[in-house]
Parts: sequence; C-alpha cells; structure tokens
Amino acid sequence: MTKILVLYHSNTQNTQRMAELIAEGARQLDQSDVRLRSISEADHTDLEWCDGIALGSPTNYGCVSWQMKQWWDQQPIENWGKRDGKIGCVFSSAGAWGGGQEWTCMSLMSILINYGFLVFGVTDYTGIKFSAHYGAISAGFPEEERAQEACRRLGLRLSEWTARLIYGREEAHPLNQTYHRFEDLGK
Amino acid sequence: MTKILVLYHSNTQNTQRMAELIAEGARQLDQSDVRLRSISEADHTDLEWCDGIALGSPTNYGCVSWQMKQWWDQQPIENWGKRDGKIGCVFSSAGAWGGGQEWTCMSLMSILINYGFLVFGVTDYTGIKFSAHYGAISAGFPEEERAQEACRRLGLRLSEWTARLIYGREEAHPLNQTYHRFEDLGK
Amino acid sequence: MTKILVLYHSNTQNTQRMAELIAEGARQLDQSDVRLRSISEADHTDLEWCDGIALGSPTNYGCVSWQMKQWWDQQPIENWGKRDGKIGCVFSSAGAWGGGQEWTCMSLMSILINYGFLVFGVTDYTGIKFSAHYGAISAGFPEEERAQEACRRLGLRLSEWTARLIYGREEAHPLNQTYHRFEDLGK
Amino acid sequence: MTKILVLYHSNTQNTQRMAELIAEGARQLDQSDVRLRSISEADHTDLEWCDGIALGSPTNYGCVSWQMKQWWDQQPIENWGKRDGKIGCVFSSAGAWGGGQEWTCMSLMSILINYGFLVFGVTDYTGIKFSAHYGAISAGFPEEERAQEACRRLGLRLSEWTARLIYGREEAHPLNQTYHRFEDLGK
Repeated sequence: MTKILVLYHSNTQNTQRMAELIAEGARQLDQSDVRLRSISEADHTDLEWCDGIALGSPTNYGCVSWQMKQWWDQQPIENWGKRDGKIGCVFSSAGAWGGGQEWTCMSLMSILINYGFLVFGVTDYTGIKFSAHYGAISAGFPEEERAQEACRRLGLRLSEWTARLIYGREEAHPLNQTYHRFEDLGK
Repeated sequence: MTKILVLYHSNTQNTQRMAELIAEGARQLDQSDVRLRSISEADHTDLEWCDGIALGSPTNYGCVSWQMKQWWDQQPIENWGKRDGKIGCVFSSAGAWGGGQEWTCMSLMSILINYGFLVFGVTDYTGIKFSAHYGAISAGFPEEERAQEACRRLGLRLSEWTARLIYGREEAHPLNQTYHRFEDLGK
Repeated sequence: MTKILVLYHSNTQNTQRMAELIAEGARQLDQSDVRLRSISEADHTDLEWCDGIALGSPTNYGCVSWQMKQWWDQQPIENWGKRDGKIGCVFSSAGAWGGGQEWTCMSLMSILINYGFLVFGVTDYTGIKFSAHYGAISAGFPEEERAQEACRRLGLRLSEWTARLIYGREEAHPLNQTYHRFEDLGK
Repeated sequence: MTKILVLYHSNTQNTQRMAELIAEGARQLDQSDVRLRSISEADHTDLEWCDGIALGSPTNYGCVSWQMKQWWDQQPIENWGKRDGKIGCVFSSAGAWGGGQEWTCMSLMSILINYGFLVFGVTDYTGIKFSAHYGAISAGFPEEERAQEACRRLGLRLSEWTARLIYGREEAHPLNQTYHRFEDLGK
C-alpha cells in the first residue's frame, strides 16, 4: 500500500475542504492508504509513517499559518535528516485571488524541502484556465468544479508519484494514464 | 508632476492589456505624468526619469520572461546603485489560475528590490474575492471587472505612494482617500 | 523624530544580536527614535507608533519562526488596511550559509507587504563579498565585521528611507551621503 | 546507468566551476552517466535524455540569468507536460553573501517544478556552518572546501535520488550511505 498523509490546518473549513478533496483524489489510485489529518490529530508518527504528503494551510500574510508552522517547529529535532526522500506537495486557500496563495505554497514547499522531501506541482489543467502548477489554490471555499478537480488531481498525482517513485509501480506513472490531463487545451 | 513608468513585456496582449489598465489607474491621481512603454520602446533614460514604476511580464515557468530579464540584465552597469529610492510594484498574467502569477510577481519584485526600489502590494479588495496583495494578476486576458479594477487600483496606488513619499503630497496618501477600498468586505 | 521599530524573535541570541546591530545602525542618523523590541515586549501600539520597521526572525525550515508568525496572525484584525505606507526591511539568521536565510527574508517581506508596508533591500556592499540585498543575513552569530556592518547598514538605510520618504528630509537620502557604500568594489 | 544532466549558464566561470564540482559529485555514485553542459552545448534532446538534472545560473537581480531563461522559454512547446517525473536540483553563484543566491535558487526551482520535475534540497551540512538546503550557493568562485563539498554533495545526492526513485536501487538511498552527512554538528 502507498501511504499518503494529507496534513492540514484550517480556520474556516476552506482549507479543510481542499484537504478532503485531495484525500479523495489520492484514493483514486488503487492500493493507496490515505490518512486525512488536521494538525491537532497528527504527530511525528504520521510523518514517519507516510511515503508521501500533501501539506495545506490557510494563507495568512502570504505565508503558512502560525499553527501549522508551530507543528513543524516542534517536531522532535532528532528526527530531522532521517526522513529524507519522501514525496510532497502543497495547497492553500486565501480570501481572494491575488491574496498570496502561491506565496504560501512556496513557504509550505520550503518546509518540505528543508525536511528532505522531494516536492512537485501539477502540469495538468483541470478546467478552463485552471491549474495547480505550484500546488492547489483556492479563493475561499473551493466551489467551482475546476478548483475541486485541481485538488483531486493534486492528490491523485501524489499517489501516482509515490507509487511510481517509492514503490516502483511503473503503471502508476502519470504519463501512462488514460484520463484527460489538459482540459483547458481543448483536446 | 509625479513621473510614473508602466514598463511591460507581452507576447499575447494579456499583459499589455493589464499595463494599459494600470496606466489608466495611475492617471486617476492628478499631476501624474504616465509613460506606458513596452520593453522595446523603453531604455535606461526611462528608468532614470521615473519616480515610480509598475513592472509587468507574462508568467513563463512561474518566472519573468527572458525578454524582460534581458532588458534588466543589459542595463548599463554603471547606473546600478545610483537609482535607489524609487517606488515599485509588479503585475503578471498566466494561462491559468494557479499558473504561477504570484511566483512571477516575486521574481519581478526581486529585480526591483535589487535595483534599489521600495516595493509594495495593494491591501484593497477590488471586488468579490479579488485583490492585488502582491501585485496585479490575471489568468489570460483581464476580462472581469474585478480583475480590471485590480490593475487600475495598482496603478492608482503607485501614483499615490509616489506622490506622497517622493513629493510629500499628504493629500495623496491612500488612507486620506474617499473611494471604496474594500469592495469584498461589504462596507 | 523618525520612529523606528526593530522587532525580532530570537531563540539563541543570534537574531537578537543582529537586531541590536540594526538598532545601532538606525541610530546613526540624527533625529531617530529607535525602539528595540522582542515580540514578547511589543504589541500593536508599537506597530502603530512606528514609521519604519526592521523585522527579524530565526530561519526555521526556510521560513519565519512560528512565534513571530503568531505575533502577526494575532494582531487586531480591525487594524489591517489602516497602517499602509510605512517603510520596512527584514533580517534572519540560520545555522549555516545556504540554510534558507534568504527564503526566510522573503516570508518576512511577505508579511510586511501584506500589511501595507513598502519594503526594500540594501544595494551597498559592506565588505568583501558581503551584502544585504534582500535583508541582512547571518550564519549563526554575526561575528565577522562585514556581517555586523551589513546589519548596521540595513538599520541606517531604514532610518534614511524613513526620514526621506515619510518626513521629506532630502538630506537623509542615501545618494546624498558621503560614507562608503561599496566596500567590495575597491573604490 | 543513471542519466544525470548538469546544465548551467556562466558568465564568469563561477557558476561553471560549481557545475564541474556537481558533476564530480554526481559521478561518485557508480553507474552514473553524467553530462556536463552549458546552455550553448545543450538542447531539448539532453532534457529528454536525462533522468535527473542539476540546473545552475548566475544570480542577476536575485533571479535566473536571461540566457538560461531564454533556453527554457524556447524549448519546444509540444514537449511540455510530457517530461514529468524527472528529479531536479539547483545551484547559483552571486557576487556576495546576501546577494540573492537563494532567491535565484527559487526561480530555478520554479522552472523545474513547472516542467514537471520533483525538486529537492540537501539536508546535510558539508562543513562548519555550511549547507545546500535549497540548492548549492556560492559568493564568487567556490574557493572554500565546505562550499566545494556542498556542490559535490548536491551532485551525489542527485545521483542517489535518481538511482533510488527512478531505478529502484534501494542501496543508493542517502539514508543507507556510510559517509558523514553532518560535518557541522560535531559528529
């Protein structure tokens, strides 16, 4: 089983809803064991357990929330440098388009890269003018289908990369899939 | 007169249209002399001339276009460190929401900060769930009114900060204006 | 008087020492009223009071510490959007060169830009191969003179920009100073 | 054989020297086929060929050089979205510490993430207060041993991740190595 952790902090349920959609997407690949956890439900054993992670936070000041940062800053220091080589991706909701979601994704990636994860974005388009190139983003609650599908796709991609790269399942490689990866481009 | 340069590169007219809207906004403050220039029309004398700049590029790979970067990399080296203290802001269009516009805004800010500019974003909301907190962004052509207004607001704000900070015009300070700065928040 | 706030969080005294040097530099310009405060000593009245800020944090995971982020996330929401137009800069120490100091500077700038500050870096070189182009950085305690001078210069520059841009003191403009701004370049 | 591409642009030989050291490190793992190429020597067939890439550029304005950006912007558009799942890392030299190397690393990562690569940093310390957490960085020519070793380590790590993740060679996993990963921490 591919072990996927969707770890999030949410104040208003917006980021939480994204997390649920990402978990749903991660389960679209068979043999995926998906844990959906808020930071209050997760600890270092979840971090050790997972092969891949999707990490999400609200956008506050164009940066990860203090609660999510605290969760990482208080991880047992002795584990650092001993968890290298897991797969990671990120997501964030803000109050507005142009509100700093992509800057927050960068700060979330910074945490993952520092901890030894390999991070990725999604090349796919999941609807007209919609993508998750640097992580899944939302303005408020993810109501539109294209935004919801971006979350699911991020989760699916996480399962795919983890299955391919950690477990060597060549059939899980995104380039071997038959679903439509570029909805925006009219194919 | 407050001297404002709107400097852009555009492949598809999307970033160009943003530039036009920003120039329009910059002219909303009286005593603003606004130059709207593509990189092929501008040189180091424009950079010397201006008090404030709005710098815009398409998003390619979540980063400034090579053409815009080339324009800066080829600026006369002897001018560097002698233009400090101007005011700057940024804008970018990408093919999709989540396409890296805000990462591109960061690379554009990096150029301006390096050259000695002071950079800002816009705290205002210009419609439901729309802002330009780290610069104005668009997915494709800026068709929606809230996206167009974000461009205009960025330009207006540039004129306001330049008038206030460079020329000491206290009446130009955004906090002294009567227009509606937070459309999203129902006031 | 130009009102300067040096606001920091420090776990190991490294960032604190940087803050002290920055405060020292800020006082090099006459008519500067400088408050040096850790986050445990500062509140929203300091933020309202200041004309300019230097904001510093340790580098943890290439990002602002959770304590500093908490300080900002818990600012009274009703003040947001009403403090625009102050001047800001940033600083950070990490355990190593290449440890993510400049990424942390970016997250600190993100906070300031979001809150309505105009942010700057220092074009000057303060010794052989040393600068603070995107804020002052250190690996551990700032022991070298060039690293200490980078902190002082950042503080001085903050006083200069604040004096010039907020109070219109043309004589405070960095380009009107007689000190040596480019130690690295042999002039 | 693990196919590694070290792709760089260099104006002054500083970034080139880093590239050579990275290639040297990449060859430290057996069964590594390493191509060291400047952008003038490389084209899209090298990008297709490689399993892993180290991408390097000088720091100009805290961002990738226009020449390196041009190389990517002019890649055949039809290949985009069809090269997903390779492994990547980055490096950059600037004129000074604090000169924006880590911001440039971010722009280089942005290119790789956009193109579908999974990117990583190095958790290891390669000497007192020296690391490559977000890519290898240098101020000028990499003269110090700790800086040179950071380059080699980045290259070695690239070979290790590529061998492990693309080819399933568990023995290549960094956590299974016997060399000293944390020189800074008193061993």
